[in-house]
Amino acid sequence: MTALPFDDIRALLGKMPGPDEAAIAAAREREAVLTKPAGSLGRLEEISAFLAGWQGSAKPHVDNPLVAVFAANHGVVAQGVSPFPQSVTQAMVANFTSGGAAINQICKSLDISLKVYELALEKPTGDITREPAMDERVCAGTIAFGMEALASEPDLLVLGEMGIGNTTSAAAIYHALYGGAAEDWVGRGTGVDDAGLKRKAEAVRAAVARHKAHLSDPLEVLARLGGREIAAMAGAVLAARLRKTPVMLDGFVVCSAAAVLQALDPSALDHCLAGHVSAERAHREVLKRLGKAPLLDLGMRLGEGSGAAVAVGVVKAAVACHNGMATFAEAGVAGKEG
Amino acid sequence: MTALPFDDIRALLGKMPGPDEAAIAAAREREAVLTKPAGSLGRLEEISAFLAGWQGSAKPHVDNPLVAVFAANHGVVAQGVSPFPQSVTQAMVANFTSGGAAINQICKSLDISLKVYELALEKPTGDITREPAMDERVCAGTIAFGMEALASEPDLLVLGEMGIGNTTSAAAIYHALYGGAAEDWVGRGTGVDDAGLKRKAEAVRAAVARHKAHLSDPLEVLARLGGREIAAMAGAVLAARLRKTPVMLDGFVVCSAAAVLQALDPSALDHCLAGHVSAERAHREVLKRLGKAPLLDLGMRLGEGSGAAVAVGVVKAAVACHNGMATFAEAGVAGKEG
Repeated sequence: MTALPFDDIRALLGKMPGPDEAAIAAAREREAVLTKPAGSLGRLEEISAFLAGWQGSAKPHVDNPLVAVFAANHGVVAQGVSPFPQSVTQAMVANFTSGGAAINQICKSLDISLKVYELALEKPTGDITREPAMDERVCAGTIAFGMEALASEPDLLVLGEMGIGNTTSAAAIYHALYGGAAEDWVGRGTGVDDAGLKRKAEAVRAAVARHKAHLSDPLEVLARLGGREIAAMAGAVLAARLRKTPVMLDGFVVCSAAAVLQALDPSALDHCLAGHVSAERAHREVLKRLGKAPLLDLGMRLGEGSGAAVAVGVVKAAVACHNGMATFAEAGVAGKEG
Repeated sequence: MTALPFDDIRALLGKMPGPDEAAIAAAREREAVLTKPAGSLGRLEEISAFLAGWQGSAKPHVDNPLVAVFAANHGVVAQGVSPFPQSVTQAMVANFTSGGAAINQICKSLDISLKVYELALEKPTGDITREPAMDERVCAGTIAFGMEALASEPDLLVLGEMGIGNTTSAAAIYHALYGGAAEDWVGRGTGVDDAGLKRKAEAVRAAVARHKAHLSDPLEVLARLGGREIAAMAGAVLAARLRKTPVMLDGFVVCSAAAVLQALDPSALDHCLAGHVSAERAHREVLKRLGKAPLLDLGMRLGEGSGAAVAVGVVKAAVACHNGMATFAEAGVAGKEG
């Protein structure tokens, strides 16, 4: 008997390693003797210890960060949930390739590599208000494909996405996982008007109602309500964990992939930082559910990994301080008196 | 009759230019046609327009940013307001020079120049609980000295400071300018214990009480309660304005210099961004008074310009997006439908 694909995913979830506690302790020990008042670098100190734990080194590094952007199309756009036509997904992928998008500039500015993964754009997922987005085979295969984002062995993986309609898919995932009303999870995405926002809530409500009987398994939630890019990002987050590679989550859509994993295993996001809280209305609540405090709060809502990529600047500064600062002894600086 | 030094400062305040409104309009016009949903870069879009206005160019730049760190000593340390000995100011200046401090690493990480201005460390200011910190001549001369920070013509000036005892001086300035109780403005600085915190509040209360008769003029507040680095930073902010150079404010102490200027003229900080809100307790309230929303909130409280320097990464990303992104027309991306 052949194992079902989702069983393979579940098996991997059972193999997730934890951080290297000795490296965390060593990083904290070093942090304590650097030439600054104890704790005065705030979250930068936490970031250094976090990276140390996952990278297994008291001196963490961000020498090879990668933004992986996954792009896909969504059948639910038939419900009038986006002000942009579906063709924009493909056009934006071309824009990424030619270097004209926001994420290209941010990556250049902060010296981050960028890879774009195009996921069968010519085959939008099923309209979730009428049918499953994906069957189990496609979903599991796409999760496996997403694991490829680790192929270049980045030392920090930043996740991003592009897909007209995908804030509706993400909202449907949250509604399925977290309950409440459909309205709690929808927002304006790329900028729908009030009528569009109402259509989004209707679509999310209809989708969750239609698939209700199958939503107790988070992997079914992903397959039936998600999208190819969301499945691929779930795979990337999981693969990163298996390699102990720290991950920077981006906004509303990226976090829906993370939410699926967390629903499968509460510890599944221990290797993830939240890069920012986006202006998409429900993202703040999502981050609370994920237990993640965002590094940035800049009113961004672009996707593409843009908010998370900006946050890489903070991580780089943290690591630079941790590794490069002199100790009190090295600098001959007196410590606290008394 | 010779003009009094403070009259020279006041004369400069009368000559402050405003931003280039045409450049702001041109920047906003460009922003609107870049390949992203309108407004989706959030505060990054505001930053670009802000820089455009002050730099007088629709394509703003951060090619030559400078962190200027001003260091000075404070007679008020005699009141037991800091857990660190006064000698640490000089030792940290040596640490800046040899590249071992946090600000050195952040500047390297984000490609920012760093200059350290040592302000007569061997001559601490007067103990503000007993006498003025500075007389008018010293204060005005130090303000003028601070203007030198613009000599290298940075296109973004980031202010930082180092000075054992200077959170007490800053708290005294806030108490004098904003009223309330001394306790409202003091915090743990580099990490005083509860007894030290009480001594800080007592020192601030005593200082403001002693100089009460002379505190209606913000320049007198600066001279009597401030410090050399605070006076120099006030000069740097003012000189930046006269050159229309945007400024990034750092934390609790830097903002006390800004607060003096704002008290002299409510528009004096129009060319300033707040880099971050520090963990020093009253800083959030100070930023409200200054009318500035911080870019970062990372629990930092180190001084040296460190929080503001990390925020330069955000500004660089903003400018990179604004200047480098393709327009909808260039990329052949369809806009909103309907």
